[in-house]
Amino acid sequence: MPELRQNIITREWVIVAKERAKRPHEFVRSPRPAGEIPPYEPTCPFCVGNEEMTVRETYRVSGDSGWKVRVVLNKYPALSPEGDRVRRMDGIHRSMTGVGVNEVIIEHPRHNLTPALYSVEEMTDVVGTYLHRYRELKKDPRIEAIIIFKNHGESAGTSLVHPHAQVAAMPIVPSQIRSRMEEAIRYFDETGECVFCTTLRHELQDRHRIVAETPHFVAFMPYAALSPFHLWIFPRRHAASFDEIFDHEVTDLASILRTVLAKLYHGLNDPDYNYSIRSGLARDGQREYFHWYVAIIPRLVKTAGFEIGSGMYINTAVPEESAQFLRDVRIP
Amino acid sequence: MPELRQNIITREWVIVAKERAKRPHEFVRSPRPAGEIPPYEPTCPFCVGNEEMTVRETYRVSGDSGWKVRVVLNKYPALSPEGDRVRRMDGIHRSMTGVGVNEVIIEHPRHNLTPALYSVEEMTDVVGTYLHRYRELKKDPRIEAIIIFKNHGESAGTSLVHPHAQVAAMPIVPSQIRSRMEEAIRYFDETGECVFCTTLRHELQDRHRIVAETPHFVAFMPYAALSPFHLWIFPRRHAASFDEIFDHEVTDLASILRTVLAKLYHGLNDPDYNYSIRSGLARDGQREYFHWYVAIIPRLVKTAGFEIGSGMYINTAVPEESAQFLRDVRIP
Repeated sequence: MPELRQNIITREWVIVAKERAKRPHEFVRSPRPAGEIPPYEPTCPFCVGNEEMTVRETYRVSGDSGWKVRVVLNKYPALSPEGDRVRRMDGIHRSMTGVGVNEVIIEHPRHNLTPALYSVEEMTDVVGTYLHRYRELKKDPRIEAIIIFKNHGESAGTSLVHPHAQVAAMPIVPSQIRSRMEEAIRYFDETGECVFCTTLRHELQDRHRIVAETPHFVAFMPYAALSPFHLWIFPRRHAASFDEIFDHEVTDLASILRTVLAKLYHGLNDPDYNYSIRSGLARDGQREYFHWYVAIIPRLVKTAGFEIGSGMYINTAVPEESAQFLRDVRIP
Repeated sequence: MPELRQNIITREWVIVAKERAKRPHEFVRSPRPAGEIPPYEPTCPFCVGNEEMTVRETYRVSGDSGWKVRVVLNKYPALSPEGDRVRRMDGIHRSMTGVGVNEVIIEHPRHNLTPALYSVEEMTDVVGTYLHRYRELKKDPRIEAIIIFKNHGESAGTSLVHPHAQVAAMPIVPSQIRSRMEEAIRYFDETGECVFCTTLRHELQDRHRIVAETPHFVAFMPYAALSPFHLWIFPRRHAASFDEIFDHEVTDLASILRTVLAKLYHGLNDPDYNYSIRSGLARDGQREYFHWYVAIIPRLVKTAGFEIGSGMYINTAVPEESAQFLRDVRIP
């Protein structure tokens, strides 16, 4: 019989289709189409030498032979950095000016490199850049939420090969984030504990869903993973906001993120994926009950009418089996 | 400047990317790959003559020359019809036996027909079948929510060409449905009105987002449409649950559903889409504050890390322009 599992953090239900579940190796993707991707592409706005093709640069990490990471404003921004935050109530319609910041983080000078193959030093520069932009954009009083996210591969929503991530700093708190906050408050009110800390403690005891550990971080599959190989990286130390991270923890986060991406890359043959940093802004007393983390969602299946119609998910992989599979993947 | 809009029914925010928005005709899909689809396919389990390839039939609409609509249990069901609903609380883990029903509705004997091209009579048989299954499955006391949904086309999550829909009868209320109920209650508490009725009244006054009307139904684009050509069909008469529909309204619903699908088909060149009937089970006093409706989501864009990370959406189409475009599409 299939099993329904509920995620206590989001309250979402998932059907774990145990009988019709696939084995982990069935999610290995077929090889990407032949044809070498060059290390430099003349038409790519993110390549070294093409810096003029991007709009305003807001940050860079420099190295001996040029930049290592660059941050630029998105050429086609979803939000506009100029202007006031004006909320309009017109009858039943609620709207707001689309002020905010939408930046692109060009993670590496090399066009054809993939994050799974970064060195730990390179990944540390990338994560350090995420942190810098988060801290910088948070200073803007118009900003209520900051989303750092990556789209890797076409089914994850990008057609640009050159490794990059994005930052969106928004003038409202999206309903998904607010409902997570509300659930976390409710849990805290009932138990006096952070639901994320409780989950992490439980996962570390249980161990069946652990994928990787470092001194400061733990990567695991949620008990109610919504889709095959859905992964979370939690900091062991309670902190509501990403920018509370200590410097020595940045390298550690880079290390575990790289490990997890490399395990996906080698184990599943470079699947498409999205990841994002889920973090409270920690301006309004979220300190006790919220806990930032990284969510990684490989795009191995398509969502369809069932998910859209119900908001529930059917996971055709058993999280414990997927975790075992990834634990066993050796990184060359 | 882009505009943020909030959906008062779901509380979701969407960025309407006005400057970078595409014109409606830019969403017209390129022609589907050549190659005629035959009216009968020997390997298709849904074709006439292949009835033995399906598992148990639970309902059929018969015509002079055989069946017109058939309902069968899903061969690879997400839920199991036998067994008790048992909720388990194991430490922090909440799970439940996956009892429920997952049926496939084979909407037409002809393999290569598409819903946009059904006659009104054929669509009435299909909608009547949705209603029959809803009423039948609702009798099961283990069932807390019933989702009727369709996946049309590969990016909508189906690889089966033969026209079909699905029903999922579930032993829990998914969190998405519950949060909608909670918002509707809150609105009702504050105003004494159904938020859906209020929205409909407003749309009928405003008229900019109306796509089609019949005596009993209105098709329109939500003010805060989440994606290009996102559509809702509301019954004019307040009713919490789909099965409160009157017989003479069934034909009318079939007519407007067919009109909307035909406008999408002719206007956008047969786009992939999902639709689902969003309905309360109306067992627990939802009568006053909830209102059933049909949501149609053409799959014209991909969701990416931004949507996953924030639960917000970026709509690259302006709802008023898309509605105008569809109003002007003539159905041959």
